[in-house]
Amino acid sequence: MTSTKDISNDLTPNGDNAMSQSNMHPRSRSRSMAHIAAEVDAARVGKTVTFGPSRPLRLHSGATLAPLTLAYQTYGSLNSACTNAILICHALTGDQYVIDTHPVTGKPGWWNTMVGPGKSIDTDRYFVICINTVGGCMGSTGPGSINPETGIPYALNFPVITIGDMVKAQKMLLDHLGIETLLSVIGGSMGGMQVLQWLASHGDKVFSAVPIATASQHSSQNIAFHEVGRQAIMADPDWRAGNYLHEGVQPVKGLSVARMAAHITYLSEAALQTKFGRKLQDRSAPTFSFDADFQVESYLRYQGSAFVDRFDANSYLYLTRAMDYFDLASDHKGVLANAFRDLKTRVCVVSFTGDWLFPTEESRRIVHGLNAVAANVSFVDVISDKGHDSFLLEEPEMFSAVSGFLSAVSRWRGI
Amino acid sequence: MTSTKDISNDLTPNGDNAMSQSNMHPRSRSRSMAHIAAEVDAARVGKTVTFGPSRPLRLHSGATLAPLTLAYQTYGSLNSACTNAILICHALTGDQYVIDTHPVTGKPGWWNTMVGPGKSIDTDRYFVICINTVGGCMGSTGPGSINPETGIPYALNFPVITIGDMVKAQKMLLDHLGIETLLSVIGGSMGGMQVLQWLASHGDKVFSAVPIATASQHSSQNIAFHEVGRQAIMADPDWRAGNYLHEGVQPVKGLSVARMAAHITYLSEAALQTKFGRKLQDRSAPTFSFDADFQVESYLRYQGSAFVDRFDANSYLYLTRAMDYFDLASDHKGVLANAFRDLKTRVCVVSFTGDWLFPTEESRRIVHGLNAVAANVSFVDVISDKGHDSFLLEEPEMFSAVSGFLSAVSRWRGI
Repeated sequence: MTSTKDISNDLTPNGDNAMSQSNMHPRSRSRSMAHIAAEVDAARVGKTVTFGPSRPLRLHSGATLAPLTLAYQTYGSLNSACTNAILICHALTGDQYVIDTHPVTGKPGWWNTMVGPGKSIDTDRYFVICINTVGGCMGSTGPGSINPETGIPYALNFPVITIGDMVKAQKMLLDHLGIETLLSVIGGSMGGMQVLQWLASHGDKVFSAVPIATASQHSSQNIAFHEVGRQAIMADPDWRAGNYLHEGVQPVKGLSVARMAAHITYLSEAALQTKFGRKLQDRSAPTFSFDADFQVESYLRYQGSAFVDRFDANSYLYLTRAMDYFDLASDHKGVLANAFRDLKTRVCVVSFTGDWLFPTEESRRIVHGLNAVAANVSFVDVISDKGHDSFLLEEPEMFSAVSGFLSAVSRWRGI
Repeated sequence: MTSTKDISNDLTPNGDNAMSQSNMHPRSRSRSMAHIAAEVDAARVGKTVTFGPSRPLRLHSGATLAPLTLAYQTYGSLNSACTNAILICHALTGDQYVIDTHPVTGKPGWWNTMVGPGKSIDTDRYFVICINTVGGCMGSTGPGSINPETGIPYALNFPVITIGDMVKAQKMLLDHLGIETLLSVIGGSMGGMQVLQWLASHGDKVFSAVPIATASQHSSQNIAFHEVGRQAIMADPDWRAGNYLHEGVQPVKGLSVARMAAHITYLSEAALQTKFGRKLQDRSAPTFSFDADFQVESYLRYQGSAFVDRFDANSYLYLTRAMDYFDLASDHKGVLANAFRDLKTRVCVVSFTGDWLFPTEESRRIVHGLNAVAANVSFVDVISDKGHDSFLLEEPEMFSAVSGFLSAVSRWRGI
């Protein structure tokens, strides 16, 4: 069932962004690769594939992007029938390091509670792949990449991308790797938007899907929070109209403020109250100053300053913009159900009761859209008071929902 | 019932912050003023009283503040028995211009829907006074005032103040004006905190009180949002470690970002969705750029830029800090009810169902504290989906609750 073959010769060396002739013809290459399965070393990091000028990514905006490097990680083994591949789509500030140690922070992968040997997304059974999104800053082409036309980083000359463009790039890479169908596409938040886009764009290639804590369109309030973050970055004089990399500076203060504001939205009020309340930080009385008297202030300041070490400010602008533009109903004549017409994919929608950024109501809207085409959909509203971040945390109800769903899906798929 | 006398000679000239001998002895002066009522010209603006070095404001932190100028507005007439005075406490970014045109923005007063002739707080019946809070920037002494020790604006040498200090300053002014008791103290948000502080500090001087959309302690989430705003201001290099006034600049970008972040919290998600949704601003399709494509972005940018024209960045730091420090239970051995012991004041607590910044639960906590001392309290939870800003908007249920309550209170008071 899980016999494996080596496709590692299809992967460019770690960290190597150079184009190769074979990479420049991924479509023909992927076809020839389709029958080749893989043994992938889970400890290996920094895999990349680069598509050259002959294979530009045609964007929603009408612009094209080339060359296009996509950095990714894989875990587990592809079976000989190529039926056990699961694509994980990361969130706004996530990346491809799902399980293994993050090369910048040295911390464990962002979803190592969910994914791994014997975990809900079991890498002993499934071949898991996660791709740093186009526009990101962990190896895939983004605003920090060198613009071939100028020889300096793109900065704001990078084209604005959409969730649809992210999925298109993912599809290119999977085709290149010879992975024609996915057992599942799974992701939370911005990753969940990509899951929904997969259903709309390539539903026939996806046997099952798990959109978590997400929405079919970004709400007014969420656009507003993103706009605050962007304005905080752009207000920083070290942003230099976007050209900070070329000018050798970093808009650390602006990006830190953006992260602080966003971080509040990731937690529920109850979680903040339980975790911090009005507890003071290393002192017994207020200092009557603007020091971080309260633990919650100290925590936020830490979140802000830690973030700037690992994330690119312009990537933050582009990825938040992609989320703002996401509106699956609008892309389908104003009717969400149109996005799911004729869908055979089995879908498990997951939300959290304490999530006020992507509230349960948003997931219910997705379920209604799927129901309206009589799709195969289940809905798990996990009772949790932790907030939007719940999907990244120890949530046994989510773990068992996903593992049970994937086991059942696997039986349907005959693996 | 409403015969009036002239106390206008008690007021320093409009906009005159200079100390006068009489102002330097407000206590003795106020006693002699107690029997003198007033005819106040509602159209007059910019009244101030200054307390000199012999009458410093002793602050919660242990510091003192002198001289202390308090700017205020009054509306209606004080009756001969001095029993119809209502103190209105303004919110974080409010000021004393409750009804009349704001001298900076040219807009109508911030509560002219609630207060005025024939309105819920009827200036044909009541003598209304509103004082720009200490720490503010509309004429009362704040961080933008000249520090007598240095001859330049205080900036961060201004002492950190508390809600208790604000009330202490209000009490000084009312004593000075000869207003010994208040028919009511009314305010929303930060103003509501002051109302609660009045009950705790001077309950015997207050016949009734209406705390609206407020809390007896600032929540962890609210401290977090304030901290983001402060960090946005401090991140602006034009803040100059607080000394921007002396250096002739303004941290407009930082203050604007702070206001944008705060503004989101003033509206409910439903209000944002209804008002803006995902509607585009003056365009039929997204521009694939970082322009304000969405109406909600355009609205927030406007709110940010308009705010910096009328508000001082350091005042924003000090007033948010005062709110963060507010914790009436903690000030009374951890038991909120202790703050209300022996209280005879009639209290009407008002909250709004759609307010997520000061949710109904916070008002319920206040009511429980009052109930625990068998205080005379009523509780109106207004059904509204507009959010925290509801208390500033057309809310007929709030209007009728307040007018009915004040009419009944007036009967009890014998006016």
